[in-house]
Amino acid sequence: MLHGGDLLSYEDSYKGELIDFSSNINPLGPPKGLYEKLIESFHTLNSYPDIQYRKLKASIGKYLNCNKDNVVVGNGAVEILNNFIFTGKRILVFTPSFSEYELRAIAHGKEVKRIPYKEDFTIDTSIIKEEIKKGDLLILGNPNNPTGLRIEKDVLLQVYEIIRKKEGYLLLDEAFYEFCPSDYDSIELFKDKDYENIGIIRAATKFFALPGIRLGYGCASRKKVEELKKIELPWTINSLADSAGQFIFKDKEYIKNSRAYIERERKYLLKELKKIPGIKVYDTQVNYILIKLIDWDEEYVFKFFLNRGIIIRKCKSFIDLSDNHIRVAIKDRSSNEKLINIFKNLFERRKR
Amino acid sequence: MLHGGDLLSYEDSYKGELIDFSSNINPLGPPKGLYEKLIESFHTLNSYPDIQYRKLKASIGKYLNCNKDNVVVGNGAVEILNNFIFTGKRILVFTPSFSEYELRAIAHGKEVKRIPYKEDFTIDTSIIKEEIKKGDLLILGNPNNPTGLRIEKDVLLQVYEIIRKKEGYLLLDEAFYEFCPSDYDSIELFKDKDYENIGIIRAATKFFALPGIRLGYGCASRKKVEELKKIELPWTINSLADSAGQFIFKDKEYIKNSRAYIERERKYLLKELKKIPGIKVYDTQVNYILIKLIDWDEEYVFKFFLNRGIIIRKCKSFIDLSDNHIRVAIKDRSSNEKLINIFKNLFERRKR
Repeated sequence: MLHGGDLLSYEDSYKGELIDFSSNINPLGPPKGLYEKLIESFHTLNSYPDIQYRKLKASIGKYLNCNKDNVVVGNGAVEILNNFIFTGKRILVFTPSFSEYELRAIAHGKEVKRIPYKEDFTIDTSIIKEEIKKGDLLILGNPNNPTGLRIEKDVLLQVYEIIRKKEGYLLLDEAFYEFCPSDYDSIELFKDKDYENIGIIRAATKFFALPGIRLGYGCASRKKVEELKKIELPWTINSLADSAGQFIFKDKEYIKNSRAYIERERKYLLKELKKIPGIKVYDTQVNYILIKLIDWDEEYVFKFFLNRGIIIRKCKSFIDLSDNHIRVAIKDRSSNEKLINIFKNLFERRKR
Repeated sequence: MLHGGDLLSYEDSYKGELIDFSSNINPLGPPKGLYEKLIESFHTLNSYPDIQYRKLKASIGKYLNCNKDNVVVGNGAVEILNNFIFTGKRILVFTPSFSEYELRAIAHGKEVKRIPYKEDFTIDTSIIKEEIKKGDLLILGNPNNPTGLRIEKDVLLQVYEIIRKKEGYLLLDEAFYEFCPSDYDSIELFKDKDYENIGIIRAATKFFALPGIRLGYGCASRKKVEELKKIELPWTINSLADSAGQFIFKDKEYIKNSRAYIERERKYLLKELKKIPGIKVYDTQVNYILIKLIDWDEEYVFKFFLNRGIIIRKCKSFIDLSDNHIRVAIKDRSSNEKLINIFKNLFERRKR
């Protein structure tokens, strides 16, 4: 299990509808009015999408508050990630983190250097200083998946300076950006550097609840944008995803409500989960929670939840996490309550 | 201009709606009922598509009449092409042909060997015999773009045997397959070889009039399918494209009508174009026509047509075609008549 969200593999294991806590999608669903917008765009399906995605890039530039010439787009964040990795000499990844960082590096025959997070899942900048060489590309999840932590502003600036001086490249994977309460926006933070030696990736996937539409985007220097063009496949964003990207970012009310909703449920779920014995609940700034199982292994807990209609994310496939870690999404209140009750059952059963 | 279909670049040049003769899309539009199917699938947008595309591959396997385990899928034919190219040592391309063969090879740092078609755009098998080495991947458009010719069955079998013996790989790009009147189906032809050393790519793009949906597919040995999995990005086909691929191939009536329609219009357009002096019209088996301009260059003719509301495909960007070639799609009767009339005007103007 390298990725969450693979419900089809388990649909025969449970009679009834499965609740997916394995992929971290905004429980409010996509912005209102999107379906109508897509219906209006059906007639565009029998032409190619704009090969330069001009309107889409303008819409994203406006949303990110950066110049449209700094915008890159792709078939989900993972395609943009793949293209950036293509431009690096060695790929440096912190562990544990999203498995595709390393998988895409391997697919492209790149040397991978793993650096472990500290025990509290923060970054040891001195290791970066030692390791980074000219041409290296360091990928940091911000917030990181599955650990749920965002890089502190001064640490990020420190890391950036180390990398810039050594002529490396810093790639921030911010696919979960909007979920986080934050005192800084990386796209603002590096604007006056013209994104020299830094790229930032985001996506419609998680926050706009559109994993099916495949729309990732990001921000980089014009030089990097041109370099990426040589690698990018043509037309990788489908016409309806193109239309969606010209619509969803305008809904400021939806964005505000989603952030507030997740913040409330995060507090609730953290508080309730921390009451349950036998598990260690890590702090999180985002819409998923990493949990260490003290008394069980992931396989047992996975089946326990599956038998009760819930899919959780086993974490053994993350480098440096053993088979006693799981990750759960933060969902709507009723689902979150179900999750908590099953955790309580898990603990109750142990006692007998 | 590397690709057709880029209308947005020219929309300011003409007052009124442009007719696109530069991309070769079925003029009948997508199969009936597709939009309703897409609307039914909107609720799938807030989950990830099936990472294994099980239902989609079953649907394609049924349509192609091959085992679903031999099916590969991708974000348009070009992504599949890209992944196949990734597995080749050297890339051999015939010229002129689709520019992405060479572009994707270059993006992956592969050595490219160009082999020119004979003057009548058929294949000289003796050159393949001389050139092909172990691990090489030879790409053949079948029918080829922009020349419009399909490989004859006995020539194809001959080429395949040469390549198989030398342990090379033959990749057939059959993105236009359904448009061609044909005495063979490559997927049937190589079934008893278990697709050893051969891959066949097709797409919903052209024949099903869905360039916007981004759905390519193909057929290869199970061994090659596994090899490609190591390179493939996850979830590159969006949920709505996934749904479309479970719907469109069932419409046998649409397929029959489209083939008959194109055959009729091909005959009409060829007959009428051949009457016009000052151009050489090449024979074609597909839904586009390559034309050699005797008295003008492509730029002049492109502007002449643009000023009259029609976008044609300049062909200088195809290796081994000079700036006196253009390509036009075969469209609906009324558009085709407009095209012919503008050609007549072009000739009339020259006379003055």
